[in-house]
Amino acid sequence: MAPRELKQERSARTRAAILKAGAEVFAEAGFAGASVSGIARRAGLTLGALYFHFQSKEELAREIVRAQPTQVPVAPDARGLQAAVDTSVLWATRLLEDPVLLAGARLVMDQEYFVDPHELNSYQQWVDVLLPFLREAAERGDLRDEVAPEALARLVVNAATGLQMNEQLSTGRRHLPDRVREMWQFLLPLITTGKSSVCIAEPLRPSGT
Amino acid sequence: MAPRELKQERSARTRAAILKAGAEVFAEAGFAGASVSGIARRAGLTLGALYFHFQSKEELAREIVRAQPTQVPVAPDARGLQAAVDTSVLWATRLLEDPVLLAGARLVMDQEYFVDPHELNSYQQWVDVLLPFLREAAERGDLRDEVAPEALARLVVNAATGLQMNEQLSTGRRHLPDRVREMWQFLLPLITTGKSSVCIAEPLRPSGT
Repeated sequence: MAPRELKQERSARTRAAILKAGAEVFAEAGFAGASVSGIARRAGLTLGALYFHFQSKEELAREIVRAQPTQVPVAPDARGLQAAVDTSVLWATRLLEDPVLLAGARLVMDQEYFVDPHELNSYQQWVDVLLPFLREAAERGDLRDEVAPEALARLVVNAATGLQMNEQLSTGRRHLPDRVREMWQFLLPLITTGKSSVCIAEPLRPSGT
Repeated sequence: MAPRELKQERSARTRAAILKAGAEVFAEAGFAGASVSGIARRAGLTLGALYFHFQSKEELAREIVRAQPTQVPVAPDARGLQAAVDTSVLWATRLLEDPVLLAGARLVMDQEYFVDPHELNSYQQWVDVLLPFLREAAERGDLRDEVAPEALARLVVNAATGLQMNEQLSTGRRHLPDRVREMWQFLLPLITTGKSSVCIAEPLRPSGT
């Protein structure tokens, strides 16, 4: 491997280590409680090395929030409503052990500190993830005529946001995947035409729960 | 008036002043950022006078969260689904200018600091407010058979929690009442039998918006 590639690879690895350390610290302490020096320490780096990759705590937080959907890889052959259900259940399941998703959940309230109002925020980001699946479901005739995909996407994202907050309090989110499934069990009979069947899979339990 | 009554009245007034000052400070700074001395100063009281009424910051926060439903007085003749719709729209409208509701909205994330997991939290509290209305709607045959009042109450409270968080970020909650109405406009055709009509009233605008 040429020296140039080695350097690029090392740089990408350092960046990933900073994102992971940042996500862990934000998840624990929130935005205001997190310090850049604490994040550098967690990543095993000097402050200078961290600032070489991220100019500020704000930039690091924005990057972590933006990375959330990449942590929820939907099966490539999933389509329409099934893909929307799978994505939300997978998000809820992974949230329990993925520092980036945990940080995203913790930072919902704190986004005013680092997201410009006109910029992409985590709400719009998740609406943008679900909307293509729900539009596909509408085009395939799987949604009742009264069900606008946009309104359904907003309802699901808002309900999931509220769920993760409220579950954090009562059970530390242990039952979040089950709560998301219950939400779909309630919604599906109301929104679907019954032309195709949607399966609400039992989520894979993270190890040790 | 007898001296004893005067004293009781003064005590109740002081207590109300502390709750208002506490709500304002919690709404601005969150639980961790609020200081008891700052709340006493805002209420125009000594620290000793405040501690005479509330033993700790935790106790004050619990009391403010518990007081939320009393800030949303539903019309006494409202029934069933109409009462549930009215309550949620009124909550969203008043939230913009009521410090107790604003503090409740800000403290959702912070409840782990002051609410025991087995105690009443604001999620259960709002479910308990809506559930009797939705059960009444079910008994009157206004809800489709598939619609369990419990699941509907949970969905609406979670969606409203997510809404107020997400709207806080993008518009400072100015459009929250409209967003709550849109949620009901989406849900009502899906959950009702059409036997009775429900009116989603235009919310009264808080002055100056």
